[in-house]
Order: sequence, then C-alpha cells, then structure tokens
Amino acid sequence: MFSPTKPLVLYTAGTPNGYQTTIFLEELKAVNPNVDYDAVKIDISKNVQKEPWFLKLNPNGRIPTLVDRSRGDFAVFETAAINLYLAQQYDKEYHFWFNPLKDSDDYSEMLQWIFFTHGGVGPMQGQANHFNRFAPESIPYAKKRYLEETKRLYGVLQLRLADRDWLAGPGRGKYSLADIKAYPWVRIHAFAGVESLDEWPAVKAWVERVGARPGVVAGLQVTGQ
Amino acid sequence: MFSPTKPLVLYTAGTPNGYQTTIFLEELKAVNPNVDYDAVKIDISKNVQKEPWFLKLNPNGRIPTLVDRSRGDFAVFETAAINLYLAQQYDKEYHFWFNPLKDSDDYSEMLQWIFFTHGGVGPMQGQANHFNRFAPESIPYAKKRYLEETKRLYGVLQLRLADRDWLAGPGRGKYSLADIKAYPWVRIHAFAGVESLDEWPAVKAWVERVGARPGVVAGLQVTGQ
Repeated sequence: MFSPTKPLVLYTAGTPNGYQTTIFLEELKAVNPNVDYDAVKIDISKNVQKEPWFLKLNPNGRIPTLVDRSRGDFAVFETAAINLYLAQQYDKEYHFWFNPLKDSDDYSEMLQWIFFTHGGVGPMQGQANHFNRFAPESIPYAKKRYLEETKRLYGVLQLRLADRDWLAGPGRGKYSLADIKAYPWVRIHAFAGVESLDEWPAVKAWVERVGARPGVVAGLQVTGQ
Repeated sequence: MFSPTKPLVLYTAGTPNGYQTTIFLEELKAVNPNVDYDAVKIDISKNVQKEPWFLKLNPNGRIPTLVDRSRGDFAVFETAAINLYLAQQYDKEYHFWFNPLKDSDDYSEMLQWIFFTHGGVGPMQGQANHFNRFAPESIPYAKKRYLEETKRLYGVLQLRLADRDWLAGPGRGKYSLADIKAYPWVRIHAFAGVESLDEWPAVKAWVERVGARPGVVAGLQVTGQ
C-alpha cells in the first residue's frame, strides 16, 4: 500500500493531461523549495481511476488528481484547475502566471487560452486520437471531422503565436500556464494523424521552445513517456 | 451598421455557450447597476463569426465574444473566461463566485466544476448533438459513444448534487458560475438524445432550481430560444 511522504500527492499517468501537471510541478520545484510531491502512477488501462477510493477524490474518475496533504488533504481534479490551484498556493511570486488583481487583463488572456485548449484542442485532438488509433472500426467521416478540427485549432494557435513567443502576457508574452496547458497536446500531433507542424511554423517553433525547458523535460519523465 | 451604446458588447447567439454569458449578464445587471450591455446576435449559420472583423476580436471565430468598451475595448473569448472576467471586474461582492484569496478552496472547487463542464459536458454533449442531429450520415458507433459519455457525465453531476443544491460552495453550496456553466447544456439534454433526466433525480431537481431564477429566464430570452 502506498504511503505518501511528501506534502503533495499527484495521481497521474503518461497522458497529455497528466504531463500538464508533472511539468508544472517540476517547474514549481525549481523556484519554490517548499514544493515537493509523490507521483502515484495510475494504471488507466485497468480502470484504477474508477475504483471507489479514487472516486472519493475525483467523482469524474479521471487522472490527474491532486491531494494537498499540507492543506487538510484538499483534493483537486481537472488538469487546468489543478495547475491554477498550485499557482495560487505555491507560485505567489507569479513566475508562471499573472497577478489576477494587478495584471487582470494578462490573467484573463491566460485563462482565455487555457479554456481554448481545455475545451478545444484537448477534447477534439482526443477524439482524433480515438478515431485514428483506438476505435474498433474505421469511420472515415469521424476521422476527417476531428483531424480537420485539430488542424483548424492549430491554425488559431499559429495566428496567436505569429508575432509572439508565448500564448499570454504583454509584448512577446511570458511562459505561463497557458503554454503548459497546450504543449503536451501539440507535441504528440502525429498520434492524432497530423503528420508535421510545417503548416504552422510559429507553432512548430513554440513547441521547440517549450520542449527545451528543463522543467518540461523533467515533467515528461516523471511517469515515463 | 451596429453602433454600440452600452459599456459592454456581447457578440452571441442562441446556443448553450451563448446562454451562459447572457444568463450571467442578466444576473449581474440585477445586482450591479453599472452593468449594461448590447447583445449583438451573430448569424452562425452564415459564418459571420469567421469574418475578418470578428477574428480580430476572437481568433477562434466562435461565439460568444465580449468587448468591454469601458476598459479600452478589451476583448474576451471562451465562454468560461468571459464569465470569470465579468465576475472579476463587475461582481466584487462575490454574489456569483468566491473570493480567490479568502475562500480559495471554494474558488478552486468552482473552477474544478467549470473545467469539468468546459472540457467534458460541453464538448461531449456537443458531439452527441452533432451525430444525433447534424451529421450527413448515421454512424451508430459515434452516436453511442457520445450519448454514453454524456450520460456518464450526468452521473458525475448526480454524485455531486446528491447532497447539495449547487455545484460549488460550502454546505449545500451557493449558486455560482459553476451552475451557470453547466445548466444551458443539461437543460437541452433531449436534443443530444437523452430523453429524460429521471435517471439522475438530483440533476433534474437542480435544472428546475436553476431554471426558476429570474436572471436565468431573462438570459435565455436575450437572443430568443
């Protein structure tokens, strides 16, 4: 039986949603010595995330799920909500987000791009993955629908990144939760059937920029790739 | 040519995402006399939201999109980001959300349920709508996939609402942006192929509870139903 020893416990797996949280935790560890966590790998192929003990933490039965032992075992589900919680509690110097009061417009822009990915790139690319890789029958209509929508969404990212380095923030932007949200999806574009990013050069350069960060490299290794 | 006269301009249409914003604006108007808005109906059947002038406001080319004329024409896209922006700027007494600093755990829970709907109920019920109503061919596999996922997500809402009145907040909860986010989807369950809510009695009671609010009734009428 697993006994956590660190202040935070992250139940996770090697998926785009899982990586968003391990990347941010690794980035946080590098700037805040109080941040440390046990990463508990959940075997989603065996539906461990649907077991009663897990549903008590997250009624949706999905990874990742965070438990903050240092704050009364407060449990957080939904990837984006986990990272915003971690930012609020453990990034009080705004290394990776924006002060909601003093920089409210930057903060709103960051949220806009987080929601864009959370409701668009994530679910639509997820469906492209499904019909491209996992569906028991080949359904050309559905394959085409989700591949085209994924490409359209990459086109929106291209528009945004054409004259900036990061999705949110003034000027050329600042690396933030918005980038951490989208990167783990876009990096595995080929899995969904998007053969290369050449059509979206600013997105391609951004993927390389994000991927070069030590915190991102570390975050991708926590659960194995 | 449309000339706005009110401090806020909302570009919207009669869809679940559109209703989330008109409901919240009507709720806000009732508590804050400074809130007023022009609702500009966008004919999404003619792809007005993909025209260049619109893409300057929202590169994703979707409704709703908000422009705050009182704050330098600041533009906000993504339904949930619009409502969080409106809350932050115009609900400083926390009628419909939670103080992120003083009530950070309630605030986090509200975000968790907003993201649950934004990445789950919304996109999955949207796909159920598509394959149930709009797809040019009948694809039983896809129909079943999204109908079952929509029902599973309603089951998660049922778990949450079994012993409370509202999705977030202490005790039996407080009506908040989390409820405004989910309600316009769940109320049109039949459109996606979910014949009734009898299987989820707490969800059914919650839909009636939300729908009885004058602000909700008004919000649903802004663009016609």
